Parts: sequence; structure tokens; C-alpha cells
Amino acid sequence: MTKESIAESFQSLQDRICQSLERVDGKSKFQEDLWTRPDGGGGRTRMIGGEGVIEKGGVNFSEVHGAVTDLMKKNTEIEGDSFFATGVSIVIHPHSPHIPIIHMNVRYFELDNGRYWFGGGIDLTPHYIVPSQAQKFHTGLKSVCDKYNSEFYTKFKLWADDYFFLAHRNETRGVGGIFFDHLKEDEHNSKEKLLSYCIELGDTLSELYGSQVKFGAKEHITKRHVDWRNIRRGRYVEFNLVSDRGTKFGLVSGGRTESILMSLPPVANWEYCKEIEPNSQEELTLNNLKKGVDWLQK
Amino acid sequence: MTKESIAESFQSLQDRICQSLERVDGKSKFQEDLWTRPDGGGGRTRMIGGEGVIEKGGVNFSEVHGAVTDLMKKNTEIEGDSFFATGVSIVIHPHSPHIPIIHMNVRYFELDNGRYWFGGGIDLTPHYIVPSQAQKFHTGLKSVCDKYNSEFYTKFKLWADDYFFLAHRNETRGVGGIFFDHLKEDEHNSKEKLLSYCIELGDTLSELYGSQVKFGAKEHITKRHVDWRNIRRGRYVEFNLVSDRGTKFGLVSGGRTESILMSLPPVANWEYCKEIEPNSQEELTLNNLKKGVDWLQK
Repeated sequence: MTKESIAESFQSLQDRICQSLERVDGKSKFQEDLWTRPDGGGGRTRMIGGEGVIEKGGVNFSEVHGAVTDLMKKNTEIEGDSFFATGVSIVIHPHSPHIPIIHMNVRYFELDNGRYWFGGGIDLTPHYIVPSQAQKFHTGLKSVCDKYNSEFYTKFKLWADDYFFLAHRNETRGVGGIFFDHLKEDEHNSKEKLLSYCIELGDTLSELYGSQVKFGAKEHITKRHVDWRNIRRGRYVEFNLVSDRGTKFGLVSGGRTESILMSLPPVANWEYCKEIEPNSQEELTLNNLKKGVDWLQK
Repeated sequence: MTKESIAESFQSLQDRICQSLERVDGKSKFQEDLWTRPDGGGGRTRMIGGEGVIEKGGVNFSEVHGAVTDLMKKNTEIEGDSFFATGVSIVIHPHSPHIPIIHMNVRYFELDNGRYWFGGGIDLTPHYIVPSQAQKFHTGLKSVCDKYNSEFYTKFKLWADDYFFLAHRNETRGVGGIFFDHLKEDEHNSKEKLLSYCIELGDTLSELYGSQVKFGAKEHITKRHVDWRNIRRGRYVEFNLVSDRGTKFGLVSGGRTESILMSLPPVANWEYCKEIEPNSQEELTLNNLKKGVDWLQK
């Protein structure tokens, strides 16, 4: 299996995800920008947003390669002289405060010394946490993971708790999901199987999100809900710009800034020491932004 | 001159700045929060914002000390076993898109090995650049610098160009100002003189800002102006969370998150590949977000 064929699989995945997300949105179509990276490679950025479910959403495919620069060595864990990286990244910001933000990324790295690995993650960031919906999401992820390795879900769920965490806020980004990196073939899975694990996760995304959208879209929206959504979007910005390794890798590896930062919401608010009403839905959400919650049991 | 007396001078500076900024605002008063740092020290955070000129503004004083942690060693240039740091930080986000954002910071560091230094910076971020106003700002900074060392302005203006720069956007944050760090006594200035340089910069801030406010407040505001202000505020968020060393030091040294992130605007927008009308005021501004502009000659 060549790196080119992996990139092709990821491109097809992007196509399928865009088609399903257009159905989930109900009104808008993706607009595509093709771009090339001056130092090697390029990508297809697809953006959606309008009067449907999605206010701003992006599905990126990229395949970049070239020399490992000093800046990359300093800011990432990449070693060697040259690298190849391909992947699909998604972030969807819906209009409704009752529909969660969703993020997914699957990626493949290969270095000139022959080392390779897969990485990825899917996580859900509800503006208002509904435990039964978080359970549905985690159950869906677990069923994909279980097909490949019975330890994947438990291990990658813990990893997501640690990764999707804002240390300076002492808050998880949302209800988590799974995160994995440096995944290589072993006695359980060949390289081909690992690729199909990534692809299957990607294909599951729109299905899982469709169910979240269906649930949240029924809820009535008030100004208070929208204000809270914008505060939570501010936290999303903080995570992506302060903590996210993917964003950092993209920015220091000379990636296309507009494609990398498509993950930022259309609008975000910051309010100094925002007061939270006791026993409110907002407080319930904050109380659930913790590591180690077993969402399967909620 | 003890570190305690330097902290006292900074506290008095905070008092004077808040009084002047209340006059500039015209309507609101600062609200104060006192806080203590679990590992040593604390601060006074003062916030302002309402129906006057300022939508959201903060003036922080802090004096923190304690052990140099591994996290701090990894993320900052601090060496030694224990540190002392005191300073005043200001960020003002005005309502009007025609009034610039202003930032100032003056600070003093001391390590247990006896090493000390002053640092600081003032920079102006107009949503719409008006060259004559940028000139006024830089001329004011130069006249303070020239009292202490004839090389300060030229040196620190260049440093600001490099520091207040968003590499991933290839844009300066605004029209710059001055930035300096690791400033120690020499044949030109004693330690006392360096402190009074920092204090005098601080006292100049409200005066310089008052003049910017007076000019911008006359301008008519349209929805287009507000939309553009919010995009520029998004860039301000990017700078503070991706590039700013002060923010990074604060977050990793266990500073108070709400005080550190008071610098973030009340609202910010991100639009994928925003189109800029040729020859518009927006384009003029973007064309001026470059290093090396000699604003004194504009």
C-alpha cells in the first residue's frame, strides 16, 4: 500500500463526508478551493454554511510533503529529513446552541527513514451537554473501535480526555470522543486494516452527527442560549489556538492558514468572569466538562 | 531599590492609569477584583466597559513569585530556582471601529541569583489605519524614549515590528509601537532611571490614547465598519493566543486565567477567505500591516 493510495482513500472519504453533510445541513452546498503548498503538496478545502443547519463548516483534505524544517523540529515531534503527511480534517459549527460542534481528523505520516503512523480523533463539543446524546455518540465510536481492537475504545477515549483538555480553564473541550496517534501495524491489525479503521471512523462521522442534529434541532432557541453558545465558541478558539497540536503543526509547517483556521467559529465571545446561575443548564454543562466521565453509562 | 518598592510604583501607576482611562471613557468606572496566586503573590484586576468609549478594557497589576517550575523552564526563558515578577498590563477594546485597540505592558523580573531586568511594550492596533494618527502615536513614544537613551526608540520600534507580528498571516498586529526586554542598568541609565522610564511610558499611555479616541470618535459608524472591526479583533485573538509571550508565561506560570485573558475582545469574527474590495479602506489597512514602516515620516 503506497502513500499515494492512502492519500487517494482520504480524498474519496472527503467526497463521501461532504455528500452526507450536505444532507445533514439540508440547504447549502460545499464550495471548494484547491491550493498548493509552495514547498510541496497541496489540498482541497471545502466550506459550507448558510441558512441550513450549519453556520460554518469545513472539510479539508491535504497531502503535503517536503523537507523537515528546523521550525517543525522545534515545534513538533517530527524527526528525519523529509516527511509526507495526508489527512482529512473536519470542524462543523452549527447555528443552533442545542446542536454540538463536531470535529474529526484522520491522518497518515511517513518519514524518509521508512517510519509511518496513523493518527486521528473525533470529539463532540455540545454547547449544552445532554448525557443521553453523549452516550449515543460514544457508543457509536466504540462499535467502530471494537471491530479492530477490543482495547482501542478504552485507550483512545482516555487519550481524548487528556488531549481535548484546556489546562488553563481546567475544562475538557466537550464530552470528548477518541484520540490516537503513532498507530502502527501489529498482531491485531495490518497497515491496510488501520487505514480502513480511519476510513470507517470518517464514514461514521456524518451518521453520528446526523443523530445529534436531529435531536438538537427540535429545541427552542433563546437569546440566552445564543449568548452561551458564543462563550463556548470562545473556549473552542482557545483550545485550537493554545493547545491543538494539529493547528500548531499546520501553522509551523507552512500550511495554508485559511484552511487550518477554518476550524474557528464565525463568531465568538469573551466575557470577564461570566456569572453562571446555580442549577442552570449552563452550570450542568460546566460540571460535566471533566476528564474520566464514563459516557457509555450515562 | 527593592523589588517591593518597584511593585509599589507599579501599583500607583495602575491607579493613575485607571483614573485617566475613566476620563477617556466618559461614562463607566473600573471594577476591581483582588486575587491571590496559590503558589505566591497575587494581583488587582480592574475591568471597565459599558456605554462609554470602551466596550471592554482591563488594567492588571500583578506581583507573583515562587519556584521556577519545569513547565515554566520549558515554555519561557526563565532560569534559576525562584522568580519574582511584577507588572502592569493593559488592553482596551473600544466600541468604535474608528478608535484603535491599545495595549501596554511594563514589567520587572528578578531571579534568585540576583539577575533582574525590565521589559515592556506599547502598541496600537487600529481597525482602520490612519497614517497621521499612527505618526502622532509614534512621535509620542519617541519623545519619552529620547529622554532616556537616544537609541531606545529606533531599537525598540524595530523590536516591536518583530514581536507584534502574526507569522501565519504575514501581517503585523497593527501600526506597532515599542517593545523591549532584558533591560538592565548601564552607563546611560541606572536601575532607578529604568523604572522611571517604564512608569513614564505608562503615564503617557492614557494621553496618547485620549488623542486617538478624540480623533476616531468623530467618525460615522456603519455595519461594514463593525464587521471589519470584528474580523480585526479575530486577528487580535490569534496574536494573543498563538504568539504572545506574556500570555504564554501567564498561562504556564499558573497565573489567573481570567486576568490574563481579559485581553481578548468581547466579540470576534472569523470568515473564511474574506474578500477585500480593491482600493477600499480595508485594503489600505491591510497594505500597511507591514514591518519596517517609518510611521514618524507619515
